[in-house]
Amino acid sequence: MTVLDTLRVPIVQAPMAGGVSTPALAAAVCEAGGLGFLAAGYLSPGALREQIQAMRRLTRRPFGVNIFVPDDPVTDVEALARYRDRLEAEAALYGVRLGEPLGGDDGWTEKLAVVRDCRVAVVSFAFGCPSRATVSQLRTNGSEVVVTVTSADEARLAAGAGADVLCVQGPEAGAHRGTFRNTGAAPDIGLIPLLRRVSAAVELPLIATGGLAHGADVAAVLAAGARAAQLGTVFIPCPESGANPTYKAAITDPPFPGTAVTRAFTGRPARGLVNRFLLDHSAAAPAAYPHVHQLTRNLRAAAAKSGDPEVMSLWAGQGYPFARELPAGELVATLAEQARTAIADAARRIGG
Amino acid sequence: MTVLDTLRVPIVQAPMAGGVSTPALAAAVCEAGGLGFLAAGYLSPGALREQIQAMRRLTRRPFGVNIFVPDDPVTDVEALARYRDRLEAEAALYGVRLGEPLGGDDGWTEKLAVVRDCRVAVVSFAFGCPSRATVSQLRTNGSEVVVTVTSADEARLAAGAGADVLCVQGPEAGAHRGTFRNTGAAPDIGLIPLLRRVSAAVELPLIATGGLAHGADVAAVLAAGARAAQLGTVFIPCPESGANPTYKAAITDPPFPGTAVTRAFTGRPARGLVNRFLLDHSAAAPAAYPHVHQLTRNLRAAAAKSGDPEVMSLWAGQGYPFARELPAGELVATLAEQARTAIADAARRIGG
Repeated sequence: MTVLDTLRVPIVQAPMAGGVSTPALAAAVCEAGGLGFLAAGYLSPGALREQIQAMRRLTRRPFGVNIFVPDDPVTDVEALARYRDRLEAEAALYGVRLGEPLGGDDGWTEKLAVVRDCRVAVVSFAFGCPSRATVSQLRTNGSEVVVTVTSADEARLAAGAGADVLCVQGPEAGAHRGTFRNTGAAPDIGLIPLLRRVSAAVELPLIATGGLAHGADVAAVLAAGARAAQLGTVFIPCPESGANPTYKAAITDPPFPGTAVTRAFTGRPARGLVNRFLLDHSAAAPAAYPHVHQLTRNLRAAAAKSGDPEVMSLWAGQGYPFARELPAGELVATLAEQARTAIADAARRIGG
Repeated sequence: MTVLDTLRVPIVQAPMAGGVSTPALAAAVCEAGGLGFLAAGYLSPGALREQIQAMRRLTRRPFGVNIFVPDDPVTDVEALARYRDRLEAEAALYGVRLGEPLGGDDGWTEKLAVVRDCRVAVVSFAFGCPSRATVSQLRTNGSEVVVTVTSADEARLAAGAGADVLCVQGPEAGAHRGTFRNTGAAPDIGLIPLLRRVSAAVELPLIATGGLAHGADVAAVLAAGARAAQLGTVFIPCPESGANPTYKAAITDPPFPGTAVTRAFTGRPARGLVNRFLLDHSAAAPAAYPHVHQLTRNLRAAAAKSGDPEVMSLWAGQGYPFARELPAGELVATLAEQARTAIADAARRIGG
């Protein structure tokens, strides 16, 4: 029995750090019967606490908070320095100074304290696996623990650490891959075969995510064995989302030919719309997170302010062509209805 | 109404050229209620006719024949010459002469004449789209025409040429990608979002393929909107398959860490188990099909004869860890039963 079993609708709104996830968005999803998520990434611990409190004023339903697990310290400082030099021309073009490419743990300890203190119902992790002790403390405190995995090996590690639920992320997903290690190529096993491998490796309930954009896609991952489907990109255009208007417009009326995975914006692999910055810098970007995130932040902020999508991180999953502006609650209801129809159609096709 | 609607089980056995598809395999699938396929690729027109005749002695059910659409003539002859030079050391190691890297259309006109003459129920194509005239001739003659597509653009072209059904192939698939063009990177849109895009682009019934290895995966693509699921790799270990014993063993007890897409063996992108030849030569292999296929054929044959999997093309989809030795008819029945259970479970999860 997990929080997933208490949902009226097996739909999870993906945590989207950087301002997209808001209490209004997450609460609308919860009220519609799904599971809404706040994203702790890049927030101060105080701002996280305020979002949790705001959320509780909007809904009495359980919700989730996602936290980034700190990366190993970057080793290739020369590659990072070369990337900084390369971006100086961009900074001059946009009239900003590059950020200091600092490391850091994004307030890991403090944010864990906030979610424990607030007894958040579901705490999920990305970029790594918390220790057994951390998982155990959260569970004893009443939280359910979800770990994002991108391979069967990561699934085994997360199960070993005591996770209650796994979020299985396929390469179709928008934004950051949740891979535990930042070096090398991110795993490329598609969501359906990945669910199969993870199901065979561990006994835990699974949330499936990656490129899902329609209720029939939700139905597909439920049929593949997932307990719930997690969608992110389709929530970006919602009025409750905090996405910048230029970002919303890029998703719903894309001036770009598709998506690709890049380290250019943050130093970790993430899927976004293929704009000029991604094309120009992906090949040179080092595996250095959050250093590259810090390095490019002023650039991205200046581009967002001036409404220039070419230098923004326009995270998007492979289902982005189907994102439409719709209130989040209506979106959840529509997805659920489409999923029911899709399952009924599939039942007719398979016969009995 | 298509042949797909007449199947007791919405499962298609993928055509696997190079000896894996046999009349015995395809007939066993047809007799179990699915749709079996012969693979015309690399066969002589006479051998294709014999296989069709053998098939008809084994089953009265409809079946399919898959034909490769000829590629554009290769242009980069220097890259091909460099690749030939590179492989001389491999040839010396295995005591064989490299094949002549010839082009050719694999008997295109003659094979079309054979399937017309034999009035084969379903004729499918890969590597391109046949002309409107070719499609029309086949349809007038009583065949249903299936075109393999890997993007929404290819789906529109195939619909425009008059195809009855599309086979939508995701990047998870084993063996050759069906992409119309051989240059550049093969499309990487995962099967579920790809089905969504193709469904939005054309009205045709869809067969879904790529990494499917369990009845729940079949259920997933039916829920995503496909009319049937096509599986290849799971049929390789069947006693009815013509796969070399070393190949069968590599699939069911893999000494390799996973799969990757490569042009190293044939000059067209294809997914196989990551063996030494794939690792050593993928980066150097040119987009030259069937020239590279011809170049490496003696090498692959020598390796197969000596039971050395390191230089064989061990085509495998991302679902390969779930392939087991099982008679093909039992496999189809098992997949169908698993799919029914998966749909029923999903129906409970989505509620009503």
